[in-house]
Amino acid sequence: MPVATHGAVKGVAPRHLRELGATIILANAYHLAQRPGVETVQALGGLHALMGWDGPILTDSGGFQVMSLGALVRVDDAGVQYRSHVDGRAGRLSPEEAVAVQEALGVDVAMVLDECVPATAPPDRVARAMHRTSEWAERGLAARRRPETALFGIVQGGFDSELRAASAARLTTLGFDGYAVGGLSVGEPSPETARVAAETVALLPAARPRYLMGVGTPGDLLRFAAMGYDLFDCVLPTRNARNGQLFTSRGRINIDNARYRDDPRPIDETCKCPVCARYSRAYLRHLFTTGEILSSVLTSLHNISFYLDTMGRIRQAISLDAFDEFRHSYLSNLARGQD
Amino acid sequence: MPVATHGAVKGVAPRHLRELGATIILANAYHLAQRPGVETVQALGGLHALMGWDGPILTDSGGFQVMSLGALVRVDDAGVQYRSHVDGRAGRLSPEEAVAVQEALGVDVAMVLDECVPATAPPDRVARAMHRTSEWAERGLAARRRPETALFGIVQGGFDSELRAASAARLTTLGFDGYAVGGLSVGEPSPETARVAAETVALLPAARPRYLMGVGTPGDLLRFAAMGYDLFDCVLPTRNARNGQLFTSRGRINIDNARYRDDPRPIDETCKCPVCARYSRAYLRHLFTTGEILSSVLTSLHNISFYLDTMGRIRQAISLDAFDEFRHSYLSNLARGQD
Repeated sequence: MPVATHGAVKGVAPRHLRELGATIILANAYHLAQRPGVETVQALGGLHALMGWDGPILTDSGGFQVMSLGALVRVDDAGVQYRSHVDGRAGRLSPEEAVAVQEALGVDVAMVLDECVPATAPPDRVARAMHRTSEWAERGLAARRRPETALFGIVQGGFDSELRAASAARLTTLGFDGYAVGGLSVGEPSPETARVAAETVALLPAARPRYLMGVGTPGDLLRFAAMGYDLFDCVLPTRNARNGQLFTSRGRINIDNARYRDDPRPIDETCKCPVCARYSRAYLRHLFTTGEILSSVLTSLHNISFYLDTMGRIRQAISLDAFDEFRHSYLSNLARGQD
Repeated sequence: MPVATHGAVKGVAPRHLRELGATIILANAYHLAQRPGVETVQALGGLHALMGWDGPILTDSGGFQVMSLGALVRVDDAGVQYRSHVDGRAGRLSPEEAVAVQEALGVDVAMVLDECVPATAPPDRVARAMHRTSEWAERGLAARRRPETALFGIVQGGFDSELRAASAARLTTLGFDGYAVGGLSVGEPSPETARVAAETVALLPAARPRYLMGVGTPGDLLRFAAMGYDLFDCVLPTRNARNGQLFTSRGRINIDNARYRDDPRPIDETCKCPVCARYSRAYLRHLFTTGEILSSVLTSLHNISFYLDTMGRIRQAISLDAFDEFRHSYLSNLARGQD
């Protein structure tokens, strides 16, 4: 899912997302509630109409943002009290309100409010956050009013297999439209992350979408898709594009490198995106070094295309029962690096 | 002409310029010679191939930039000595080199090197700059090697009718593919500017393109087209877009104004551009206030579309012999302001 935190994928208009093959995007309910505000979104006909995107939209509830923006005042069983990162105003978000806000935005998939603690937090804190997230999930489910908005539960529990299993059991018993796994996407994946991710996905129903939140690099997409995950979101394609880092089938390149000064080749000779069809590395380097807005626009298009293409090829390989060969070939190509 | 100083219209890809009806764009030879460098542009197949624009390109020689970037070291009859605004390196530009650089870029229309002094400079300085510009024009003409690159002369002479007439007479005797009028675009047009612009255009052959450099507002386009000018260039559409100022048939609006918070209307209800077809003022205000790149992209698209549409309507009105009615209606609409 390309990330449209404020209701816009950074630098890329919806009709271009469509051209690149995007089918679903992610936005953030907390950010949208701050600006432009839920009532404004409603008055303008909902988030789809507002941003001109007619495909599915999934929103994160904003629990992670509230807890990570340094704006947190307090979390208790009732919910979260915070100060807005925009204007400092006090706000509160209960599990019920989190669902109501997302339904009011008119999105297709809402996430329950979860309590996010680092996976490396003290065991009792991780356990408490998992239990609270499960309680909130149940309350969120009970608060649903709009049947068109699907609701996903979020498995928490840090690196503790028993906590993860208890969380998954509780959520699957409640019954959600899909299941997310949270709290595993900070920094590079460790063996612990891979272990917990694999154990957890196996406890979630394969007939429902299974979503690994905040992941990841192109290699991560393959590794976690191999475990059974269906959905991912990550800011890397657009953020790295703005910093001049481009994804290719042969690994990443930093477009400001002097070696690309006269390089007539596209970013990736195997890529079918409109940027690789038209522009040379030399030109993209020029746009980056002169600070042209078009640099961010074109490199974001390419990076998003690269991610969507990778996911499309994963789906195709699975349907052809050739995923292992594909994975091997994709990862060894990635590791080869540039000529 | 949309402005692509560094070989990119800020925020707008060539295929979208085409969709908006752009036929010719302006780039800057001095800036391109600094970055990415003339040899790089040549190695990549010329400026059209580099930037992916297959329509005509006009380049300014860069005299104005050299003299306005505070990087000037010295102007004498031989040409200009300067320090690069990018890396401080000493450079020189003669009238012959200015033509050679633009021919090497492969552009369709090159401008002669001119000496730019403020129209309000002391009379002897204005006179000397005009005479030097005429000498340089003759040398530029003699230095032509590439017949596919048209060459335009530039009339100088400040607010002095006799100097302007002498400049125009000298250039038309030499014979250029088109004629530009320089030195009149600083700040809001004064009655003096209008007088000199009108007198000067009348001295230039109507069968050749007559180009008023660096102009202007939408109203300016009408006023100067009424005098007989055919070509204009201005950074206003893209620069103002980035600052949240949008052009409409009812005057400019500042999209960050709180009155647009819930405004479901497009920027301009009479506009046919893809941005006005899809997006509300409320959404564009939201993108601007959250600092989204898409704000600059969409508002630049609209503003360029508005300018191109204005020029298209001017051409149509002229061809229908209805220019005066059109001008009256356009300017009174502009003056009405928003509801």
